[in-house]
Amino acid sequence: MLKHTPFAAALVLAAGVIAAVPAHAQFAKPEDAIRYRKSVMFIQGQTLPRLGAMVQGKAPYDQAQAVASAETLVFTGKLFPSAFVPGTDKGDTRALPAIWKEQAAFKKHQDDLAASTAKLLAAAKAGGGVDALKGPFGEVAKVCNGCHDEFRKD
Amino acid sequence: MLKHTPFAAALVLAAGVIAAVPAHAQFAKPEDAIRYRKSVMFIQGQTLPRLGAMVQGKAPYDQAQAVASAETLVFTGKLFPSAFVPGTDKGDTRALPAIWKEQAAFKKHQDDLAASTAKLLAAAKAGGGVDALKGPFGEVAKVCNGCHDEFRKD
Repeated sequence: MLKHTPFAAALVLAAGVIAAVPAHAQFAKPEDAIRYRKSVMFIQGQTLPRLGAMVQGKAPYDQAQAVASAETLVFTGKLFPSAFVPGTDKGDTRALPAIWKEQAAFKKHQDDLAASTAKLLAAAKAGGGVDALKGPFGEVAKVCNGCHDEFRKD
Repeated sequence: MLKHTPFAAALVLAAGVIAAVPAHAQFAKPEDAIRYRKSVMFIQGQTLPRLGAMVQGKAPYDQAQAVASAETLVFTGKLFPSAFVPGTDKGDTRALPAIWKEQAAFKKHQDDLAASTAKLLAAAKAGGGVDALKGPFGEVAKVCNGCHDEFRKD
């Protein structure tokens, strides 16, 4: 079914260009891809501040919560790159066209997100207390903001 | 901060009642909890049909895709129960008040979701081809529909 739509053709093209696209990156409509990545980012946007509150001493340190939050960031980080399907800079989205023009730079942010969230998770699991989370948390936040600065409309 | 709001008080109460609530189940506003669970369910709603298309022979069998989809269902299944915070049957949601009145029944659906998605993932990883996915896929779909029938507005 999908194979016969221009949108799916763009997906197939994207799969060839962006090596990191998982095989399950298939959306019936461009709006679905947009809503999918916004859903992922909403979850991330709810998760990171929970860790931030801990790191800033505004919430008690809780290792289990830190691990769960870091796991969520690691897992969701893998989900959304595939939802940046070509052509989905239009519609209800703040994604800038640069995402598709500067794929190497965009991919670099994805790789940095994967690496920084993995480090955060490792630090959370190691259980070195809240101080051990500060550096890795700051790195994840920096990666998020860096990508938003470069590839998201204000 | 959160501790002094009625919403957070409800959360604390909920944490005592529903044993499965993860520690990171904290939302600043009821709307955030609603949007969080809808985000999770949108991701699930994009993921399950991908497996469905495979199982129904409408898409080619792809073990890596099956595993990735099943992993997404397993992981996201753990995220959203905590977002059913007391009081969040109001607003932009189809959640029925019964969720909070019949907590044992609601919890049973959550447990069934965890068990059925775990079986689906195991089947996908075992690589027995598409036929081996049919039973586990049907079980997951049944659990989803069962909970929606009971606890979601039409």
